[in-house]
Amino acid sequence: MEFTADDAEALTKVLRWRRDVRHFRSDPVPETTMGRLRDAMALAPSVGNARPWRVLRVQNSGLRNSVRLEFERCNAAAAAEYDEETRSEYSALKLAGLAAAPEHLAIFTATDPAAGRRLGRRTMPETLHQPTAMAIHTLWLAARAENLGLGMVSILEPARMERIFDVPESWEFSAYICLGWPEFTDDTPLLHRVGWQKNQPTEWMER
Amino acid sequence: MEFTADDAEALTKVLRWRRDVRHFRSDPVPETTMGRLRDAMALAPSVGNARPWRVLRVQNSGLRNSVRLEFERCNAAAAAEYDEETRSEYSALKLAGLAAAPEHLAIFTATDPAAGRRLGRRTMPETLHQPTAMAIHTLWLAARAENLGLGMVSILEPARMERIFDVPESWEFSAYICLGWPEFTDDTPLLHRVGWQKNQPTEWMER
Repeated sequence: MEFTADDAEALTKVLRWRRDVRHFRSDPVPETTMGRLRDAMALAPSVGNARPWRVLRVQNSGLRNSVRLEFERCNAAAAAEYDEETRSEYSALKLAGLAAAPEHLAIFTATDPAAGRRLGRRTMPETLHQPTAMAIHTLWLAARAENLGLGMVSILEPARMERIFDVPESWEFSAYICLGWPEFTDDTPLLHRVGWQKNQPTEWMER
Repeated sequence: MEFTADDAEALTKVLRWRRDVRHFRSDPVPETTMGRLRDAMALAPSVGNARPWRVLRVQNSGLRNSVRLEFERCNAAAAAEYDEETRSEYSALKLAGLAAAPEHLAIFTATDPAAGRRLGRRTMPETLHQPTAMAIHTLWLAARAENLGLGMVSILEPARMERIFDVPESWEFSAYICLGWPEFTDDTPLLHRVGWQKNQPTEWMER
């Protein structure tokens, strides 16, 4: 396989215009599109080819409601830890699109998968969590290339999420994903636009 | 920004043909290409836009040698834990391209970055490690689209890596990356070809 300059350019475009979306339209994502996203996510790398990510597609409204309450609880607790000025800035941020997003995915990591036969994770158990993050990133890019938006919600208590979804003991909560059509397309990420955190340079250092 | 079917197809092609490369040619990667990879990696997502990944470009031969010795030590210890049959299978695997790869990157995660102002990581400190994994994945895809190969080495003891590179107390070792031109292009990932671990289906479950 030989990649062309056009391929590299398309990839750069997806990377550059990837956005963390929190404003969703509520109309559904076609099942064929969801199928393509599922296939794309399955292409993510994993140490020993262990493929430890576990995906629950959440459609039950009771479960969705439990997640929203858990987010609100954690978000209020996070806000309370800032000083007054930062708190009002924080509280004005829209940090999740749980109410409108048509698709919700709860993502867990299996911490003792048989697949991979333990290769590459003896000294670094973290290598099971890294593939899950890469799989989420794969989904993110694939969704963006379909003109969909994705938001990753982490203002949640892992132990509570594991209880809400009653997952096996060995699964650890990794993230909750909102997916759908973005309500608007902006060229500036939300946290930049509202001034919470601009880009810091990420220099490479020589050794 | 509206993505076309061609964009989605180019992305899928890069995802599908991404490979974990361990066989490198030793000729150098042009500095302009390295610059593009650096720019691509900086486009990775991060919670609160904290951008916690830290990249050391390792050119010092003494440091490279220390890493190779550390890999050999950990690899021998990992091999020793398997039963005899699996051990001979394990030992036949080529798990790193440290000797030939022209570019080595040591990747760490800053666990207390000022950037991001703690947003989104109160309940999940893991959200600082997830962006580093996503940044590595971004580099992986960008390298592949330039027809370069990348190998991620994790058979290393994090505490030793932190000591070898004498990094700040708050940095945690995430991965060691080998980068360069692949010696050959194969259409089957190494662990499949040698029969260590074939793909397991990664079904999405409904809830």
